[in-house]
Amino acid sequence: MILIAERINAGFKDIADALREREKGPVQEWARRQAGQGADYLDVNIGAISKEPSDMRWMVEAVQEAVSTPICVDSTRVEVLKAGLNAGDGRPFLINSTTADPGKLEQVVPLAAEHGASLIGVAMDQRGSPQDVDRRVENAAQIFAVATDAGLSPEQIFLDPILMPVRFMQEQGPNVLEAITQYTMLSDPPPHISVGLSNIRSQTSQKKLIARTFAVMAMARGLDAAICDVMDDGLLDAIATAELVLNKEIYSDAYLKAFRMKKGAS
Amino acid sequence: MILIAERINAGFKDIADALREREKGPVQEWARRQAGQGADYLDVNIGAISKEPSDMRWMVEAVQEAVSTPICVDSTRVEVLKAGLNAGDGRPFLINSTTADPGKLEQVVPLAAEHGASLIGVAMDQRGSPQDVDRRVENAAQIFAVATDAGLSPEQIFLDPILMPVRFMQEQGPNVLEAITQYTMLSDPPPHISVGLSNIRSQTSQKKLIARTFAVMAMARGLDAAICDVMDDGLLDAIATAELVLNKEIYSDAYLKAFRMKKGAS
Repeated sequence: MILIAERINAGFKDIADALREREKGPVQEWARRQAGQGADYLDVNIGAISKEPSDMRWMVEAVQEAVSTPICVDSTRVEVLKAGLNAGDGRPFLINSTTADPGKLEQVVPLAAEHGASLIGVAMDQRGSPQDVDRRVENAAQIFAVATDAGLSPEQIFLDPILMPVRFMQEQGPNVLEAITQYTMLSDPPPHISVGLSNIRSQTSQKKLIARTFAVMAMARGLDAAICDVMDDGLLDAIATAELVLNKEIYSDAYLKAFRMKKGAS
Repeated sequence: MILIAERINAGFKDIADALREREKGPVQEWARRQAGQGADYLDVNIGAISKEPSDMRWMVEAVQEAVSTPICVDSTRVEVLKAGLNAGDGRPFLINSTTADPGKLEQVVPLAAEHGASLIGVAMDQRGSPQDVDRRVENAAQIFAVATDAGLSPEQIFLDPILMPVRFMQEQGPNVLEAITQYTMLSDPPPHISVGLSNIRSQTSQKKLIARTFAVMAMARGLDAAICDVMDDGLLDAIATAELVLNKEIYSDAYLKAFRMKKGAS
């Protein structure tokens, strides 16, 4: 499971404040904490409070000073993504995200190819978010086709079926699981499949239970990546156990610890 | 999810002692405790310590005096199953189990048909337990065919792909998950699909975590029944949450409690 740590996001007040005041401390502290939990990527998102490419550059640089973990630059704005990528020090990058909107694809896919970055493709299009399985699959297949034509390998492509809050759009849960299974059939080897895990738990009374339960259910269908709360030990233990069930980790009495160590957790 | 409570089994010392001494107390106490957790069936098994049909009759009668929960008579011996069924007071019964062995099928399936009981079909045959997906599916399909020919409806048939300990046969985990998916395609409506959940956690350091993680992963593939430890609140909460993700329970902030109440938990 590829863990993309969600916490360096100006949607959180401490990160928003740090960004406004150009105070590296909180950003670097979250970088170290999440890297210490074994994050494979650190998502970096300047949020709705800024449209400034220079803010993304500052935040990427702050993270790079603190840890060597790969970075996931996260923005709906192409100029902001570019600024993050251009600030890179040579470490691997993941771009979050393109959609299947042709106008978006033609800008973001070349950016990934140019920088040798991996790319998250979110299965929405110019009409918005899909409410069924078919459009989730059509949009993902479209992203996959454009990305592979541009030279990205399946391993560089992360398809996201769009997870929705169980509280408000409960009927979408089975659709997301079915879309995941269908994504695994797009190529051999298959692309990565990722979700924004915290979406499902939004405004629920059992946030951690819902997030970790969905995560392992989706892993049973083919999910192998998630933007998530890597500080949630119960989530990491559930993921390690799912890897065991899927025969991707070897059982030992210390398998939970072994999973963390393999992830490079400190 | 159909919960078949595992604890009235003479493999446990307190039940073995109770059986030997014809002491109803422990049997009835476990009947009440498990029924109070919302068990759909109480598994009743006289274990390896007895081959006596009269012991099964005694144990079924003891349970029936204590609670109104349906009973799952559990034995490899046809005479023992018969004694349990003949002691029935009219409540629904589940028979655990037949295999795909023709000699077994021809004895147990008519017994289910005669008593109007549901039937667990374990996907093993005269050669033993399958180590791959194909034989799991062939054996289950064979059981399904014989059972439906005898007049059982798909809703009365519970197919069991044979869950094995992750500690010793880890490579079987993905095979069991794949077999579950294939079982869902055997008919429309599909048969029930059940596992002996505690098998997977045998001799591990994380028994409850492994059991509940596998349970919800398997539910994502089509599992809808399990013989399990219904006293494990973490397991029941995980199952309730999986039902939510699968859109089979309605979200409310009190959904965990609502799930228990729906199950008739006290």
